[in-house]
Amino acid sequence: MQNIKSYVAEHKDRFLSELIELLKMPSISADSAYKKDVITTANSVLKSLKEAGCDTVELCETEGYPIIYGEKIIDKNLPTVLVYGHYDVQPPDPIDLWTSPPFEPVIKKTDIHPEGAIFARGACDDKGQMYMHVKAMEFMTRTNQLPCNVKFMIEGEEEVGSVNLAKFVKTNQEKLKNDVILISDTGMIAKDVPSITTGLRGLSYVEVEVTGPNRDLHSGLYGGAVANPINVLTKMIAQLQDENNHITIPGFYDNVEELSKAERAQMAKAPFSLDNYKKALDIDAVYGEAGYTTNERNSIRPTLDVNGIWGGYTGEGAKTVIASKAYAKISMRLVPNQDWENITELFKKHFESIAPEGVKVKVTPHHGGQGYVTPIDSVGYQAASKAYEATFGKTPIPQRSGGSIPIVALFEQELKSKTILMGFGLDSDAIHSPNEHFGVWNYLKGIETIPFFFKHFTELHK
Amino acid sequence: MQNIKSYVAEHKDRFLSELIELLKMPSISADSAYKKDVITTANSVLKSLKEAGCDTVELCETEGYPIIYGEKIIDKNLPTVLVYGHYDVQPPDPIDLWTSPPFEPVIKKTDIHPEGAIFARGACDDKGQMYMHVKAMEFMTRTNQLPCNVKFMIEGEEEVGSVNLAKFVKTNQEKLKNDVILISDTGMIAKDVPSITTGLRGLSYVEVEVTGPNRDLHSGLYGGAVANPINVLTKMIAQLQDENNHITIPGFYDNVEELSKAERAQMAKAPFSLDNYKKALDIDAVYGEAGYTTNERNSIRPTLDVNGIWGGYTGEGAKTVIASKAYAKISMRLVPNQDWENITELFKKHFESIAPEGVKVKVTPHHGGQGYVTPIDSVGYQAASKAYEATFGKTPIPQRSGGSIPIVALFEQELKSKTILMGFGLDSDAIHSPNEHFGVWNYLKGIETIPFFFKHFTELHK
Repeated sequence: MQNIKSYVAEHKDRFLSELIELLKMPSISADSAYKKDVITTANSVLKSLKEAGCDTVELCETEGYPIIYGEKIIDKNLPTVLVYGHYDVQPPDPIDLWTSPPFEPVIKKTDIHPEGAIFARGACDDKGQMYMHVKAMEFMTRTNQLPCNVKFMIEGEEEVGSVNLAKFVKTNQEKLKNDVILISDTGMIAKDVPSITTGLRGLSYVEVEVTGPNRDLHSGLYGGAVANPINVLTKMIAQLQDENNHITIPGFYDNVEELSKAERAQMAKAPFSLDNYKKALDIDAVYGEAGYTTNERNSIRPTLDVNGIWGGYTGEGAKTVIASKAYAKISMRLVPNQDWENITELFKKHFESIAPEGVKVKVTPHHGGQGYVTPIDSVGYQAASKAYEATFGKTPIPQRSGGSIPIVALFEQELKSKTILMGFGLDSDAIHSPNEHFGVWNYLKGIETIPFFFKHFTELHK
Repeated sequence: MQNIKSYVAEHKDRFLSELIELLKMPSISADSAYKKDVITTANSVLKSLKEAGCDTVELCETEGYPIIYGEKIIDKNLPTVLVYGHYDVQPPDPIDLWTSPPFEPVIKKTDIHPEGAIFARGACDDKGQMYMHVKAMEFMTRTNQLPCNVKFMIEGEEEVGSVNLAKFVKTNQEKLKNDVILISDTGMIAKDVPSITTGLRGLSYVEVEVTGPNRDLHSGLYGGAVANPINVLTKMIAQLQDENNHITIPGFYDNVEELSKAERAQMAKAPFSLDNYKKALDIDAVYGEAGYTTNERNSIRPTLDVNGIWGGYTGEGAKTVIASKAYAKISMRLVPNQDWENITELFKKHFESIAPEGVKVKVTPHHGGQGYVTPIDSVGYQAASKAYEATFGKTPIPQRSGGSIPIVALFEQELKSKTILMGFGLDSDAIHSPNEHFGVWNYLKGIETIPFFFKHFTELHK
């Protein structure tokens, strides 16, 4: 690819300042208080696609936040790449742990990012990685090197389950017709170890509510005599995993594929230091399902985690109260073949069945999605592999991710095309955590690499 | 007692309006944000004692909130009654469950209180019951019917453990010298079933913190591979009680006195309807330690309740995060002979011992106090019994309360005198809950009854 390196070098500062402007917008889809900001962000993405050279751009209204669509069709006979990303971000809390405000982006140097990293909510997940594609598009159109057709679909509800995107995809199959879907919303093993994500976990996310007495009670007068919803909730949650950290929900593992010794041996080859892992998290030991390694536990095995719990008095000091209600948000990561709606149903039935007398239990499904695996012999994977070789000088390693992009499985089902996950983030980027950041080097490297994917995909595509 | 009934009838409206003014002050000792209001409340109590006829009143500074002291010594040879109460209140949350603002008192009729009840935080616990003594004092001084010496000690830290009152009592034994201590900070069985509280439970209140990874993590990338502090906390709390709801902390029951069949049979005579109890709380079943009745579970048996729990994302919507920390506030109600400091130590040791690898655990004691039992053959109890007979026309029933007034055990130890608990509240008054209230009838009945205690105690006292 001629002069992509020099183009990036020349426009580096603008690429950074444009992303920083985008990151200033608190597009928190989970919190309706930020509705206006999410809409503003959508319009800014629309504008950026137009400027990048899309012939048509549309703000597609949904029952939730709008989907931004853009396209440039240069020749019906050429293949079409559909780029997907999202402009919404996770809530920033716990806010007090941020070293700089989550929506006031700053570039700071870190050990892993001596060239500096952009610190802001969404820097990596997914504004930064999504914007790499916008800038790669700009390069290809302005230098007349766009080798095929391209469509963009950037949504605003990925962090809350992509419910409306799913409807949009189902009802716009012709419009979204493509030969491959390209997404940058994952990570790579290390800056010098490029990797392509070949598997994603599914997700089932529920909220539970345990109700005891009809009002808060004095723990002295009623303590020991009525079911305390918090004590009961802790007992119920504790029962969901046994002493080996196997999940106890009947039927939960029914469709889980057991990987062969050979496959597990292959996985074990990925560079990984347990010591560094523990040091990075400041923990004295890892923890998880018996019989599996850390890398297996967070990729090929399903899990159950409480993401939030609350009930009773949580303020300063002491209050001797028995709360009327206790709550928890619980999510399960699923592996390919586990159906998220079925798992959600199994959870609901089981959780209600283990409630003791004296309490009422309510289980509310939040959202979910299926797992996904992409074959490494596909044209898309091969094109991506060549792209990394061109810019990193080495062949990327295929890896399963523990994360979920529920929409990917739906893409395959509805659009009949494979998704290629070219991620440029690092585990240390703290996505979903305070001080999320994205390396300047990674951002620019992504912009450099993406055009090579387009080139090789077009060439390999029959 | 001449004309107490008519005096109350004559001054009823003022008695109510004065209490309502006191209840407007948000004297929440647990929350430092209300510091100014707590001090204001202290000064208002001081003023009311002066107006009620105390010869000397003092605002006694402590390291925390001031103690209000007042006295009227009419004759060194007559007995001295020390009245204790507190002007601080519990936090009002959950605030949204109040039908009227907690610090804007209103009088509303209820089924149990057809004459109306004052709805406000502290109406019953303890401003309303404390103020009955102030008004009874006013009556006795203005009508020259105070039969003995009286001392008042009204503190502002009862809801947070009375730490500074304990120091004050230890260092002011001469000043506080008395023949009996009188407290109204408990309840009675029913409006037509007067009762005297003869036992109180002790308390150990701790806060626990479980720390896993050094930052919040993405539950997809790390889920299943690191200890989730919330899951771990639920497992640890669940382990604190077995399937019979016995507490599993080693040594916890060592000093618990087992009551005799006869004593338990005596207790069982107190009027109690399990159906009404369940209906009042809207629960389908009671819950507690196997082998004991509801009234035993909340009086003669020790308990362990989580009063608050929090961790992770508790906002609107979903956040797929593994929290770095999870917290809980846990209190244990203790019975006579269980030493609260020993129990706190046992809890700490046990809780730390059950922490799995991969997390750090911190246990912080909040406060506590010893249990207490008062003999029904004491002069104080007899005087109280006669007082109720005079105004209720029936002999009160002795009952053990599940609540704690930690300071009572300390009074006996430091001041060598017995405490008499004349409570006029009802279980349905919702103390420590939203919509706390105190019956107008109960309030006035208390003011009527207290002078009879002074009369009979003075007569019976040798």
